[in-house]
Amino acid sequence: MSATNAGLRLAELAAAVGGEVQGDADVRIASIAPLDRAGAGQLSFLASAKYAKQLAESQAEAVLITPELRDAPGPCRNRVIVAKPHEAILALLPRLYKQPTRPFVGVHPTAVVDPTATVDADVCLEPYVVVGAGATIGKGAWIGSHSVIGEGVQVGRDVRLYPQVTLYPGSVLGDRVAIHSGTRIGSDGFGYVYRDGVHQKLPHVGACIIGNDVEIGANCTIDRGSIDQTVIGDGTKIDNLVHIAHNVRVGRLCLMAAQVGVAGSVRIGDGVVMAGQVGVSGHVTIGDKVTLTAQAGVISDVPSGEMWGGFPARPHKESLRAYAATSKLVGIIRKLEQWVAREAAADAARVAGAESGGEAKR
Amino acid sequence: MSATNAGLRLAELAAAVGGEVQGDADVRIASIAPLDRAGAGQLSFLASAKYAKQLAESQAEAVLITPELRDAPGPCRNRVIVAKPHEAILALLPRLYKQPTRPFVGVHPTAVVDPTATVDADVCLEPYVVVGAGATIGKGAWIGSHSVIGEGVQVGRDVRLYPQVTLYPGSVLGDRVAIHSGTRIGSDGFGYVYRDGVHQKLPHVGACIIGNDVEIGANCTIDRGSIDQTVIGDGTKIDNLVHIAHNVRVGRLCLMAAQVGVAGSVRIGDGVVMAGQVGVSGHVTIGDKVTLTAQAGVISDVPSGEMWGGFPARPHKESLRAYAATSKLVGIIRKLEQWVAREAAADAARVAGAESGGEAKR
Amino acid sequence: MSATNAGLRLAELAAAVGGEVQGDADVRIASIAPLDRAGAGQLSFLASAKYAKQLAESQAEAVLITPELRDAPGPCRNRVIVAKPHEAILALLPRLYKQPTRPFVGVHPTAVVDPTATVDADVCLEPYVVVGAGATIGKGAWIGSHSVIGEGVQVGRDVRLYPQVTLYPGSVLGDRVAIHSGTRIGSDGFGYVYRDGVHQKLPHVGACIIGNDVEIGANCTIDRGSIDQTVIGDGTKIDNLVHIAHNVRVGRLCLMAAQVGVAGSVRIGDGVVMAGQVGVSGHVTIGDKVTLTAQAGVISDVPSGEMWGGFPARPHKESLRAYAATSKLVGIIRKLEQWVAREAAADAARVAGAESGGEAKR
Repeated sequence: MSATNAGLRLAELAAAVGGEVQGDADVRIASIAPLDRAGAGQLSFLASAKYAKQLAESQAEAVLITPELRDAPGPCRNRVIVAKPHEAILALLPRLYKQPTRPFVGVHPTAVVDPTATVDADVCLEPYVVVGAGATIGKGAWIGSHSVIGEGVQVGRDVRLYPQVTLYPGSVLGDRVAIHSGTRIGSDGFGYVYRDGVHQKLPHVGACIIGNDVEIGANCTIDRGSIDQTVIGDGTKIDNLVHIAHNVRVGRLCLMAAQVGVAGSVRIGDGVVMAGQVGVSGHVTIGDKVTLTAQAGVISDVPSGEMWGGFPARPHKESLRAYAATSKLVGIIRKLEQWVAREAAADAARVAGAESGGEAKR
Repeated sequence: MSATNAGLRLAELAAAVGGEVQGDADVRIASIAPLDRAGAGQLSFLASAKYAKQLAESQAEAVLITPELRDAPGPCRNRVIVAKPHEAILALLPRLYKQPTRPFVGVHPTAVVDPTATVDADVCLEPYVVVGAGATIGKGAWIGSHSVIGEGVQVGRDVRLYPQVTLYPGSVLGDRVAIHSGTRIGSDGFGYVYRDGVHQKLPHVGACIIGNDVEIGANCTIDRGSIDQTVIGDGTKIDNLVHIAHNVRVGRLCLMAAQVGVAGSVRIGDGVVMAGQVGVSGHVTIGDKVTLTAQAGVISDVPSGEMWGGFPARPHKESLRAYAATSKLVGIIRKLEQWVAREAAADAARVAGAESGGEAKR
Repeated sequence: MSATNAGLRLAELAAAVGGEVQGDADVRIASIAPLDRAGAGQLSFLASAKYAKQLAESQAEAVLITPELRDAPGPCRNRVIVAKPHEAILALLPRLYKQPTRPFVGVHPTAVVDPTATVDADVCLEPYVVVGAGATIGKGAWIGSHSVIGEGVQVGRDVRLYPQVTLYPGSVLGDRVAIHSGTRIGSDGFGYVYRDGVHQKLPHVGACIIGNDVEIGANCTIDRGSIDQTVIGDGTKIDNLVHIAHNVRVGRLCLMAAQVGVAGSVRIGDGVVMAGQVGVSGHVTIGDKVTLTAQAGVISDVPSGEMWGGFPARPHKESLRAYAATSKLVGIIRKLEQWVAREAAADAARVAGAESGGEAKR
């Protein structure tokens, strides 16, 4: 999105979110910024007393503010009183910024489209897009520069590929899929058999299937299946630099943060949330609505509904307890070692005493 | 690979793997799928009683099955009895799927090839490939769309670059190398000297050398050397999103899973296996046939033949014992702390008693 | 850089670094290599007795060597005695290797430049570069093949983009910025609100701002801000495959090694060093001159000047002590468990005795 040229009167914005204007209702707002960066023509917001200090120094033209904080000190006197300033900001974004739209409808003359491909008339293929034999591209597509759509790929309706995406042959994308720049869909999985002194490559004939309403970040890699398929469920959102291996099945409405890595044949349920840099070992099953905390290393199945973390991953609370116990251990390990040594010495003495006593009794 | 249109009779397939047909030997098989996905015209396999439940519900047209399981219940009555169904499936793949082949031989008219480059006649340069001055490309190459082959790069025979690979100037690829989409070979290493208040860049004049029969996944980065070279040994296979820094030397026949990161000047022996997300610190030496488990963080040398894991990485068994001990600690840490506190109090009391006793005696 | 064809006399090189020649001052040197790889026409160096063994077997044409090691054994008799051989090598690099320069000045005929873009006359736009509406590219730019410069992007002076970089619309690059192949600047951040049964995308209207003299490695992803901006400070250097999320502000002169991941809205001070695979959780503040060790997982603020490591990250020394304590624990955990069990039994016996004793007394 980019800012519209015109801008809007503060009164208009206040009306749109049901807010009450204090100060100059005619001031023009062109864009939105956080308190510490906002300047002339910019609207900001204050939702929590925690950030009142930023308001005290903010150069914002106007500010959305809660009823409780309406009189918080600060140079910005143009205020819109509204119950939930953060939600109001989100509601105003589409008024102040224009949604990016396709620069043209049609196929750029530099695009190389195989004559056997089926491309809807209502698409935008930007410069240097390459479309392979037998591929189909649905209505509403916006395919960024240099993207490569392999042989036999199926692209649904209203799909957006940002520049330089690669869809390997046979990949299937649902409707309203968005894939950011540099992501590779359907590359061969990492499968070899060591035979005759070399790693022989296992052929990969399975596809990579991306469900409806999936968004995938930049520079990700999602491999095709070996003989199974790799599947990303409807409504799942994936951040940047994520790796998903062959034969993995990700459920619906999952969230996978940046640099997550999922090894081969993992099964992931619906509504699973994985924080950044999580790793999941091969063939593991992760239930529905599981949460995995940052950098977790999962090497066993995770039951539905649980939050796990740490390495090796276990229930989050256990993981926290283990870290806490380790911290406490640092302070007493020397004492414990001394105690164990003393006990061992005492045991040895007892044994020696018992033996010599035995001798004496005999 | 993609499925052939025709398909084959089950009898033919059975004969190819030395199997005995039960049921309809004339049924036509077009492709292969796992039990839980297979349908009409599809062949599946059952190699272990563990998955017998999947057979019980499978809609596969036919199934490869071990002698022991030949009568396992399930609607699929067309069965080929064979000792090792999994190996048989691998053997049948090339009969049912055609290997992808170059779409044409020659240089696409949109490719930009420097007149001083030496390109064999028997190559396929797909659309928008760029080849720099003095580069050489050997017989049999298949260079994917938008790939960039820098100045002076040497590409051996039968090399495959998938779309959008970048080979920085001076890189050298052996024969039968395959590099997946988005991988960058020979980028500058991360080397700076802090001087005069800035990070001054160290020039990188070393090359990146990729041996024969190496396969590299998608979106990897392998840096060139500073004054040394970066070398990947023959037959080594690398998964997606792997980073290999300047001056690293990787031996022959190694396997590096996704998201592995190897810092500068590391030496890696032959036959080393690194699981996903492993990290190796700079200047470390890893012996031959070492295995590093998932997410291991290696900060010291690893002797040949050992399996290491954890952070900081140590022998795998020690690492497991440490995790187990930590888990047990959770249950007793409170008692241990109490004990240490009690001992300390008792010691203090003894000291106080001894002192007052001393007083009394005086 | 690549080696110049000619080469230089050893006497010339020695003079350039103020060294004294032993052996043949007329021998010609064409390039530089480490001791174990150097051969005819190559200069190497020995700065520490630790590597004297390599000198003993080195085939180098000549070697830079410290006064103390000038007589160390080895077949290479052409030696330049110099106090700091490593610094001398760095000083000689520009004499032996030519700095890469732009292959031409101008816009390659295959570049697609929007007519509303402002492109300085003194630039090199390589083949298949795409420049969007309203973008500006400053003097001295060298834009690699297939790079995509989005709508309204501002590129400063003397900027180098390697092939296949994507600058999303609205991104801003300072002067002397270098970005390696496959890096994506300004992609949407990972922000959704779960509402009405789906993850609704938060619009991202903030920009991504890259300061002067920043270098960014290959295949990185740096997201644009949501309503804030993402900012990388002047002189900061970033390695390969690094992820920086929306609204992050990185200070000046930081170093971020490969595969580092920084979550949303993190604040990072000046002169911060992050080793490989470090992860930082969202909304954390990291002070000036902090060092984070490899694979650290930061989930809380880090004060200026400290070195932290481990997961969850804490002061490096504490982290080391925790690992050491855990290692020691392995050897005594069984004894400790026995002791706790014995104490519990003794306590139970005491309680039972007290109770029965109580009975007796009544």
